[in-house]
Amino acid sequence: MSKAKKISGFPEWLPEEKILENHLIDKAMSIYESHGFVPIETPAVELIETLTAKGVVDKEIYGLKRLAAEEEEESKLGLHFDLTVPFARYVATHFNDLVFPFKRYQLQKVWRGERPQKGRFREFYQFDADIVARDTLPMSSDAEVVTLLAKCLVAFKIGTPRIKLNNRKLLVGFLEGIGISSELLPKVVTVIDKLDKIGDKGVTKELDTLGVEKGAIDKVLAFTSEKIAAADFSQKIASLSLESDLAKAGASELEEVIALIPEDLLPFVEIHLQIARGLDYYSGTIVESEIVEFPEFGSVGSGGRYDDLVSQYLSKSVPGVGISLGISRLMELILDNKLLEIPAKSSAEVLLVVFDEENRSAVNTFAEELRKEGIATEVFFKSPKLGKQVDYANKKGIPYVVFLGDKKEVKNLSTGEQQEFSAVQDLKSVISA
Amino acid sequence: MSKAKKISGFPEWLPEEKILENHLIDKAMSIYESHGFVPIETPAVELIETLTAKGVVDKEIYGLKRLAAEEEEESKLGLHFDLTVPFARYVATHFNDLVFPFKRYQLQKVWRGERPQKGRFREFYQFDADIVARDTLPMSSDAEVVTLLAKCLVAFKIGTPRIKLNNRKLLVGFLEGIGISSELLPKVVTVIDKLDKIGDKGVTKELDTLGVEKGAIDKVLAFTSEKIAAADFSQKIASLSLESDLAKAGASELEEVIALIPEDLLPFVEIHLQIARGLDYYSGTIVESEIVEFPEFGSVGSGGRYDDLVSQYLSKSVPGVGISLGISRLMELILDNKLLEIPAKSSAEVLLVVFDEENRSAVNTFAEELRKEGIATEVFFKSPKLGKQVDYANKKGIPYVVFLGDKKEVKNLSTGEQQEFSAVQDLKSVISA
Repeated sequence: MSKAKKISGFPEWLPEEKILENHLIDKAMSIYESHGFVPIETPAVELIETLTAKGVVDKEIYGLKRLAAEEEEESKLGLHFDLTVPFARYVATHFNDLVFPFKRYQLQKVWRGERPQKGRFREFYQFDADIVARDTLPMSSDAEVVTLLAKCLVAFKIGTPRIKLNNRKLLVGFLEGIGISSELLPKVVTVIDKLDKIGDKGVTKELDTLGVEKGAIDKVLAFTSEKIAAADFSQKIASLSLESDLAKAGASELEEVIALIPEDLLPFVEIHLQIARGLDYYSGTIVESEIVEFPEFGSVGSGGRYDDLVSQYLSKSVPGVGISLGISRLMELILDNKLLEIPAKSSAEVLLVVFDEENRSAVNTFAEELRKEGIATEVFFKSPKLGKQVDYANKKGIPYVVFLGDKKEVKNLSTGEQQEFSAVQDLKSVISA
Repeated sequence: MSKAKKISGFPEWLPEEKILENHLIDKAMSIYESHGFVPIETPAVELIETLTAKGVVDKEIYGLKRLAAEEEEESKLGLHFDLTVPFARYVATHFNDLVFPFKRYQLQKVWRGERPQKGRFREFYQFDADIVARDTLPMSSDAEVVTLLAKCLVAFKIGTPRIKLNNRKLLVGFLEGIGISSELLPKVVTVIDKLDKIGDKGVTKELDTLGVEKGAIDKVLAFTSEKIAAADFSQKIASLSLESDLAKAGASELEEVIALIPEDLLPFVEIHLQIARGLDYYSGTIVESEIVEFPEFGSVGSGGRYDDLVSQYLSKSVPGVGISLGISRLMELILDNKLLEIPAKSSAEVLLVVFDEENRSAVNTFAEELRKEGIATEVFFKSPKLGKQVDYANKKGIPYVVFLGDKKEVKNLSTGEQQEFSAVQDLKSVISA
């Protein structure tokens, strides 16, 4: 068995678990499509210069090298580590063939060359929805993608979603306003973003190490300590008497986004003034999310506004905003905590028993009639004793077994009830009853 | 633009082309599921020792290396080059959690580090369906996967499928029977497999170079020259008076498979005694396929029986058989020859016009009502002049535009007809009319 062990950090599900994952994917996809989003797919690889264009730490990237390549052949291709950078490159590549605003969804694996640990996969699914436009993109688009994220988390029925919103301009403007230097700013933002993990004490210690003054640290902690319900944001922000124009602009953007989130989803939205997200292409709206019942588990979907990412590949202004569902992380949460029922091990509704091999062609013909009626049907692959065939249906969770003998009979495996039927339509009504 | 060029050999579709690809995938998936197959997915990477276990040429494999890795850190992981080897490894890994016969489908990208050329991608989609069982797997399973391949190619409606069947035992037995040494045999098989590409002349030349005698070459060409209709196979094989037991066993397996293919699909099936497939894990049934109208294009789906692949990773006998649809190759064929209509650039059925930003929340609320009725709805992201918003719907192929002014009106963009409606249900009946 040692030859076939799983590789750490690369999740692999059993078939019934994969069916469950597909249910999540289908739900999110139908929500994305109900808003007019269309699918795209990019290669798993990009040029390494594309992946590292925005100063992303390259130790997380897997480079590709043909096994038979010469030693000196340098690797130019790397596996993508998210779907936002490839999407931005895609928009630049196909700019003249796209209609803007361009609203796309994208479901693909991404790879990160990290040391595997709980909740840190090296290969995982992301399911993104983004909107990009030429020149300007209004806050209605930020509100739409945040709405998509909230809708998906509600639809999954795995707990209470908490959507954490912020705006990078608001945070950065505030920090500038209290005198943080532009040189220190990115590091300070990174520390503040860790508040939920390391607490006030941790933030104080790290900011102190960076050389931030005690008075400024206190202001930071006062600013970031409160979680604000979305409905209270306008009042709260007025009370802060922001002076920085950048901070005011960020607050105003955030108000616009909040105003456009549907009423039934608004109770799930909170403003968390400390969140900033690690990836440095975000320039405005920032969103993260978690399941309230599992706060330790961390983020299950996130995203934000990136005004300058596409323009790195194209000398045009193409602002964008998007969210990314962490499908593999959600699966880990769901499986570890048994949050959803695991589906059957087979997609078949009916197993047709084969009495002997002479019959097989006739049984196959009947199976085709059922499939034409939309009933997924399996024909047992051998013809052992009937008990063995019924056993198989039980083990796979196939709900009905059909015997095509002198009499035609169908057995409901959950009730044990067995009854005769005459034609396909009869059988269909038994099954759909 | 040069920063965003496509990487040769890595296909990337426009959104409307990706929608078309998804249609193909959905058709194949619903056929696979109608036979009771379930999905699995394996990581993109396997241990290189797993990938090379059956002596596959390793120059086709992309190895992975973290960009930040130490020079001496050896790459142990490689991208899979097909889905059969990962599937066999998966069965070994999860052996105790699977119910046999195990019937799975698997849609994933595969990667080959080849020099890109027409029809040779370095990244492409395969969509596989396989059956594995413990100890023995009857020919009913070979017939089922061949049936799936034929059904899919018929369902795609892109031309007349030609399913080419053979059995490796039949070919190898025949060659042994005419005195080809076991040492020469694999090379001779490889040459014969190229018959369609290099013709009788090419085969003669290459077999001669290998040292095969003139008399044997003539026998080979006589054996492989004829394409046999499936319905004529039994008669034909009798006339060949095979003497080798192995060849007889292969012929008999092939007869069993043919006998179990549904009548309506049998006319698409031909026996091609020369096909062998490059991958050396195949041990019995061999299948390839093409579209009759595009013979030069080559194979669009293929597969076969592998009796010993799983047992490499597990000390148990787990024979398997499967087929693989070349989804990316099919897409290339379809797009190059315009075989299917390209879908609209949007998934939305309705665009809701926004007169001014004051209205947006109300328009959003109406959009939600439509979505709840299953109508995919986009709300225009800004509020420019109406003509601009209608233009956008036209360019994206959104069929209906709705104006929520003093009167509620819907415009059918293909007929130009505009009419009033009162409630959502009214609108729904206009759209579904």
